[in-house]
Amino acid sequence: MPQPELLETFPNPYPDREYEIFMTTPEFTSLCPLGGIETDAAELALLKGGAPDFATINITYVPDRECIELKSLKLYLWSFRNDGIFYERVVNRILDDLSGKVKPRSLKVVGDFNVRGGLKSVITATYHKP
Amino acid sequence: MPQPELLETFPNPYPDREYEIFMTTPEFTSLCPLGGIETDAAELALLKGGAPDFATINITYVPDRECIELKSLKLYLWSFRNDGIFYERVVNRILDDLSGKVKPRSLKVVGDFNVRGGLKSVITATYHKP
Amino acid sequence: MPQPELLETFPNPYPDREYEIFMTTPEFTSLCPLGGIETDAAELALLKGGAPDFATINITYVPDRECIELKSLKLYLWSFRNDGIFYERVVNRILDDLSGKVKPRSLKVVGDFNVRGGLKSVITATYHKP
Amino acid sequence: MPQPELLETFPNPYPDREYEIFMTTPEFTSLCPLGGIETDAAELALLKGGAPDFATINITYVPDRECIELKSLKLYLWSFRNDGIFYERVVNRILDDLSGKVKPRSLKVVGDFNVRGGLKSVITATYHKP
Amino acid sequence: MPQPELLETFPNPYPDREYEIFMTTPEFTSLCPLGGIETDAAELALLKGGAPDFATINITYVPDRECIELKSLKLYLWSFRNDGIFYERVVNRILDDLSGKVKPRSLKVVGDFNVRGGLKSVITATYHKP
Amino acid sequence: MPQPELLETFPNPYPDREYEIFMTTPEFTSLCPLGGIETDAAELALLKGGAPDFATINITYVPDRECIELKSLKLYLWSFRNDGIFYERVVNRILDDLSGKVKPRSLKVVGDFNVRGGLKSVITATYHKP
Amino acid sequence: MPQPELLETFPNPYPDREYEIFMTTPEFTSLCPLGGIETDAAELALLKGGAPDFATINITYVPDRECIELKSLKLYLWSFRNDGIFYERVVNRILDDLSGKVKPRSLKVVGDFNVRGGLKSVITATYHKP
Amino acid sequence: MPQPELLETFPNPYPDREYEIFMTTPEFTSLCPLGGIETDAAELALLKGGAPDFATINITYVPDRECIELKSLKLYLWSFRNDGIFYERVVNRILDDLSGKVKPRSLKVVGDFNVRGGLKSVITATYHKP
Amino acid sequence: MPQPELLETFPNPYPDREYEIFMTTPEFTSLCPLGGIETDAAELALLKGGAPDFATINITYVPDRECIELKSLKLYLWSFRNDGIFYERVVNRILDDLSGKVKPRSLKVVGDFNVRGGLKSVITATYHKP
Amino acid sequence: MPQPELLETFPNPYPDREYEIFMTTPEFTSLCPLGGIETDAAELALLKGGAPDFATINITYVPDRECIELKSLKLYLWSFRNDGIFYERVVNRILDDLSGKVKPRSLKVVGDFNVRGGLKSVITATYHKP
Repeated sequence: MPQPELLETFPNPYPDREYEIFMTTPEFTSLCPLGGIETDAAELALLKGGAPDFATINITYVPDRECIELKSLKLYLWSFRNDGIFYERVVNRILDDLSGKVKPRSLKVVGDFNVRGGLKSVITATYHKP
Repeated sequence: MPQPELLETFPNPYPDREYEIFMTTPEFTSLCPLGGIETDAAELALLKGGAPDFATINITYVPDRECIELKSLKLYLWSFRNDGIFYERVVNRILDDLSGKVKPRSLKVVGDFNVRGGLKSVITATYHKP
Repeated sequence: MPQPELLETFPNPYPDREYEIFMTTPEFTSLCPLGGIETDAAELALLKGGAPDFATINITYVPDRECIELKSLKLYLWSFRNDGIFYERVVNRILDDLSGKVKPRSLKVVGDFNVRGGLKSVITATYHKP
Repeated sequence: MPQPELLETFPNPYPDREYEIFMTTPEFTSLCPLGGIETDAAELALLKGGAPDFATINITYVPDRECIELKSLKLYLWSFRNDGIFYERVVNRILDDLSGKVKPRSLKVVGDFNVRGGLKSVITATYHKP
Repeated sequence: MPQPELLETFPNPYPDREYEIFMTTPEFTSLCPLGGIETDAAELALLKGGAPDFATINITYVPDRECIELKSLKLYLWSFRNDGIFYERVVNRILDDLSGKVKPRSLKVVGDFNVRGGLKSVITATYHKP
Repeated sequence: MPQPELLETFPNPYPDREYEIFMTTPEFTSLCPLGGIETDAAELALLKGGAPDFATINITYVPDRECIELKSLKLYLWSFRNDGIFYERVVNRILDDLSGKVKPRSLKVVGDFNVRGGLKSVITATYHKP
Repeated sequence: MPQPELLETFPNPYPDREYEIFMTTPEFTSLCPLGGIETDAAELALLKGGAPDFATINITYVPDRECIELKSLKLYLWSFRNDGIFYERVVNRILDDLSGKVKPRSLKVVGDFNVRGGLKSVITATYHKP
Repeated sequence: MPQPELLETFPNPYPDREYEIFMTTPEFTSLCPLGGIETDAAELALLKGGAPDFATINITYVPDRECIELKSLKLYLWSFRNDGIFYERVVNRILDDLSGKVKPRSLKVVGDFNVRGGLKSVITATYHKP
Repeated sequence: MPQPELLETFPNPYPDREYEIFMTTPEFTSLCPLGGIETDAAELALLKGGAPDFATINITYVPDRECIELKSLKLYLWSFRNDGIFYERVVNRILDDLSGKVKPRSLKVVGDFNVRGGLKSVITATYHKP
Repeated sequence: MPQPELLETFPNPYPDREYEIFMTTPEFTSLCPLGGIETDAAELALLKGGAPDFATINITYVPDRECIELKSLKLYLWSFRNDGIFYERVVNRILDDLSGKVKPRSLKVVGDFNVRGGLKSVITATYHKP
């Protein structure tokens, strides 16, 4: 289960300037609750939890008072590893967890998932401070 | 014959947020009713239906109440396999079938067809909710 | 001499929708009337017509009532093969011939010519329905 | 079912010289008899024959008395389109059909199949005249 | 813990021909028992098992009487997911498990691991039938 | 410690024209004060100052009365080599030092830092003359 | 018709050293006598000679007493422009013409022809001084 | 010394249409008056004029009544070869010379200079008809 | 000064098998004692030690009884950071330090250094157990 | 005129080990005595010496007692700048000058010249210590 409590922040050293921070990792993995487009029930019984999904996660934000601490972000993304969760939820969940914790001026999360059944999926969600 | 009845949806888990889903497959194939730019009548007699066309299909949409179920999209795209259909119809037909079923906020379909007679064709059609 | 009479059209199957068709070929060749930047008079005497030019031609249009028939476009582009014609005329001539025949909503023609004298040239012309 | 009887040859114009001919197409498709690594039984019932496979086929040979006629090779490869056949059989079958018909000095067939279940497969078989 | 008992084979359809099968997946992941080059003890306590490693695994073999069943290979590679194991062991273990089960004429396993501490590692092990 | 006093300028030879200068180097290196995401305390004791960071620095500006002298920029960027400084400070510090010295019409600084803990960071800050 | 009489040579300035000269052009074009894999009879009537073929020609040789004069090679390759000739003959003909004129220690000619009917062809022929 | 008198023009064959011409060469070279970032005084004495600079020059313009004659542009760019001139002057000088001679509707010149001292420079200047 | 005492090893888990380990880092940096091809004496006075060099270091070895511990290799390569040392010595020194410590069956070290004065250098040294 | 007297060496720090040094520069330029394949007599009169040629020069050698000093190699290659010399002579001349000065165990020189008349040339010469 994703653990947003792992996320930490540090004070933005240039809070008066609007500047952008982009972070990306090709090492995101989670499980698909139903086994997904390529896995049948017999396989799922073996796996006890779902078929692995793999994605590159891109995060772009404009910090306000806080910045995301890089090491804590790594641990937070690792916490999806054995969690059964659909693509659409992965991206929107990361958006919600990061915007809730860091309260940025704006934030974009892109999940670029590996090919399944010959189809590749890329999901993009955006947050703007009200 | 394309089978739009194969398409299935599931409820959008974040219906209040405007976010984008992109899906792409390099494995689209259909037949050309007339044999196309590179095939003559004698060949068509052998083929019983038309010369194969190949394309990459890119689909981008902003979901409203429903999302496209990935596995059903795969099956729907397979249903063009032995259908005789021109490039322009392939792209506009997918646009119509998907927008009719999923009723998205917006939708773009791009068909990037392989070289025929030294010429490559890419066709792009777009739908916006009225 | 370019033969626009080779161009054929077929009725646009989706005339009420504004959608885009892109076609490209790396196999365009014509002759340069003066031998061009790299050829002297002695060579031209041998060639009886001019030094070969090579280009990739990109065509993008939004169809109105008619679409360009692909095979006829191939034959039309072949008709430049032994014609002496400058780069600027190639691109503008194709623009005129296609817009005159197909009467599209809009049309763009790009000629991307091979290096001559260490210099590469790319020429872009655009038409919009009045 | 693959139709080797579609293959035609023409006399090698330089039979005394040992030279090499390489041909490649990214447009090979067949069906998997069991639905393959990514398809379950319910899908197969819909498909009536198996899940589509896609591959690039590379053929390299040194002709002896005959060369492979290109158009007939295209038709022969199309004849796998609706045939249920495993990867290993595809490559070895093409090797057998071509070597039986053309009797080359040597022949290599490579089948580079698209990703299934996150796994890509490339199969290579070789023939040398005894 | 890797589960070699998941591996299945099927009879090689062309046992008399020496031909090569290559399979590759970018979706291998396991854990590092010590947290690895980039993780400290506090992180490991959170992770309960080790820091994630990611790799592309390439497998090349010449089958003898049996071929590796693709779906079972996928499941076998998934079984490393939550196992703590060093790079050198991953590659040599896969070599031992596959050669023990499939008894190929020859086999090569390459593990191409993601950057850790600015350093990338690629490990290659080979088996030849005695 | 960064030495902005190393920066030199020369008079803009075309001060009346608004034109753009872009400079980039893949050879930026500094230290991370805390060892960063991948280094523990024992390593830091050995290093006496912090773990090395590496980045590509891109600088784009529109000069006003002065241009940045290239050799002095090289020396200025070298002065970060043994300085402990966080990513966010590197980029904003270069922005402040350059804008303070050269007083450009506008300036953008991008720091594209190497992967740490599987995560890549790119930071972008912009200055416009008031 | 190819005009080998256009080829000229100049004395090898280092005749005692065995060194290699490689030349390549992406600008080779000829005609296919039968229209080729993609053209029917009606088109051929329009074309008066055959459908255009396009290729990259690579030439590698070790000179003996003479070197190929580059400008004359260009003119010689241009002389295929309106000649109806099959792929296999193009490559072997260039090999014969060049080896006959330049008498090199060795010579390799590769013709890499554009896709026709979804199939790409590359033909390689080699000459060694007896 | 740059020789703008080498530039020649020819009448724009389509003066009533606004279309774009792009030309690029990777073969620009000049000298740096001071030896530049990488050369000391002793070297300059040997060179009698300055250290070589290398650049790709990109020129984009919308012609009005005249077009740039390609061969004359080649000779004009060659005239910088042994001239000592700074980057900023190269780009702005070409902009002035071309706009003065050809009087285009608009013109952009980009000089993309090779790495010196680990730093790459790209300079962009633009002209619009008043 | 390079610190080979930082290098650590662990027992090869498969000492009876001859297999290969490749490691690479793009993050090597050292200093050039004389300032190198691009730096004059005035700059060196500022730098107190030499101009920075940057390289990618590739290491390939076949382990015997010991393997190189990855974290210790990282620290060892960092120890060149403020050391004045020529390219040839960097590569041969790493070869000597690693072969002395790990006593592999064989070892290859490649140093791929960044462009200086328009020239790139790559140095390769190899060790084989006597 | 090439100035081999500019070349300097320094003692090989590891004379007992056979290791390889590779150096490459994309910044070689010379003149063609006859104007070359793309330049006529009128242009040559303007140029006073010949049309510019451009090449990438690759040098690979195994040092014996001496190594090539990098800065002196840069100056030596610059000395071809205004020299009229054919491709074949450029490469063989560099081979002779370097082998004469440095007396390496072996040496290879590759000159990869830019496209002229649509043709690219690459010339390779090799020296081995007798």
